[in-house]
Amino acid sequence: MQRFVIPHNHEITKEDRRKLNGHGSVILWFTGLPSAGKSTLANEVEKKLISTGVRTFILDGDNVRMGLCKDLGFSEADRAENIRRIGEVSKLFVNAGCIVLSAFVSPYRRDRDAVRALVGDGEFVEIYVKAPLEVCEQRDVKGLYKKAREGVIKGFTGIDDPYEEPLKPEITIETDKVSLAEGAEQILGYLSGRHVLNSN
Amino acid sequence: MQRFVIPHNHEITKEDRRKLNGHGSVILWFTGLPSAGKSTLANEVEKKLISTGVRTFILDGDNVRMGLCKDLGFSEADRAENIRRIGEVSKLFVNAGCIVLSAFVSPYRRDRDAVRALVGDGEFVEIYVKAPLEVCEQRDVKGLYKKAREGVIKGFTGIDDPYEEPLKPEITIETDKVSLAEGAEQILGYLSGRHVLNSN
Repeated sequence: MQRFVIPHNHEITKEDRRKLNGHGSVILWFTGLPSAGKSTLANEVEKKLISTGVRTFILDGDNVRMGLCKDLGFSEADRAENIRRIGEVSKLFVNAGCIVLSAFVSPYRRDRDAVRALVGDGEFVEIYVKAPLEVCEQRDVKGLYKKAREGVIKGFTGIDDPYEEPLKPEITIETDKVSLAEGAEQILGYLSGRHVLNSN
Repeated sequence: MQRFVIPHNHEITKEDRRKLNGHGSVILWFTGLPSAGKSTLANEVEKKLISTGVRTFILDGDNVRMGLCKDLGFSEADRAENIRRIGEVSKLFVNAGCIVLSAFVSPYRRDRDAVRALVGDGEFVEIYVKAPLEVCEQRDVKGLYKKAREGVIKGFTGIDDPYEEPLKPEITIETDKVSLAEGAEQILGYLSGRHVLNSN
C-alpha cells in the first residue's frame, strides 16, 4: 500500500536535459521599441538554431498575450506582472534545456532585471534591439504608432509611455544599421563564444 | 532601412518541433487527492521517457507555486487561476514539442476541462491518480492531512474542500492496487497505443 510513498524530487535535472539536447539553455531576451525588429530577429535566430538541431522556443505577444497573460492590460503594474510571468515561464524552459527566445517591448529596466535575477549567471542574455524612434515609426509593422499618434491607443511605448534603454545589455543589435542576417549572426556568435551551442 | 520589416509569424511550427524530437507532444495531466501519488508517478514516467530520448518536462507545485503562481492562494478562484496558468504553460510546452507532465490536485472538474479545451484533440491526457482518502491520509507525504485534521490548514482537498473525480479520464491508476512500475507502464502503453512515442 505504501509503494508510491517515496520522495518526489525532480530526479531529472536541468543538466540531464542539456546533456540529452547536446547544448546549453539560456533566455535570449529581446527588448526594444515596437517595430524595432525583436520578433523578426528572434524568428531568424530560431530558424538557424533549429536547423542545427538546437531545441528552442519563442515567447512573444502572439502566444502569451492571448493566453497566459490575457487577463492583463498595459498599465505599468500589468506590464510588470506580464513580464514577471513571462520571466517565470522562460525560466521553466531554461530548466527544460531549451534556448527560449522571449521578444517583448519590456520597457522597464526593473522588470527586465527581475527576470535576470530569476536565473543563474549567464542564463539571461539581454539583447537590445535598437532603432531610432523615427525608423520604428516609419516601419510601423502593426499600424500601432499611427493609432498612438492619433490618440486611439494610450500609453504606447515610445510615444506617450517611456522606454528605458538597457544599461549593460549582453548584445546590442542596431537594426537600422545591420541586416537581419548580420544581426542573427551576431547573436549566434555570442552563443558560440559562451559555449552555449557546444556543451557536448 | 526596411530590412527587418517582414511579417513575424512563427515560422517554426509545432509539427517541425515534433519532427525534430521524433515523437509527439501531449499534456499528461495527473489529478487526484494529496498523497495519491501524482508527482511520484509523473517522475517515474518522465525517467522512462527521458531514457529513450523523449523530450519531457514536469510542472508541479514545486516549480509553479513558488514561481509563476506565487501570487495565488488556495481559494476556489485562486485555484482556478492557478490551473488556468498551468494549462497555458502546458500548452506552450506542447507547442514546443515536449511531453509535459503536469501534476496538481486540480480538484475542480471545470478547471481541468478548461485546460482540455485549450489544446487539440488527443493532446490532453487526463490521468486520474486514484486512491482512497484513508490511504492518502495514512501516507500523508507532506504531513498536511494531519495539519488539516487539526484545523491548522483550512480548505484542504479531501478534508474540508471537495475533490471532483474525473468523469471520463483517459487513464485511471489506482495507486493502492498497482505498483509504481505497473502504473508507469500503463501510461507508457497508452502513449505507444496512440502513436505519441513513435511519430517518426
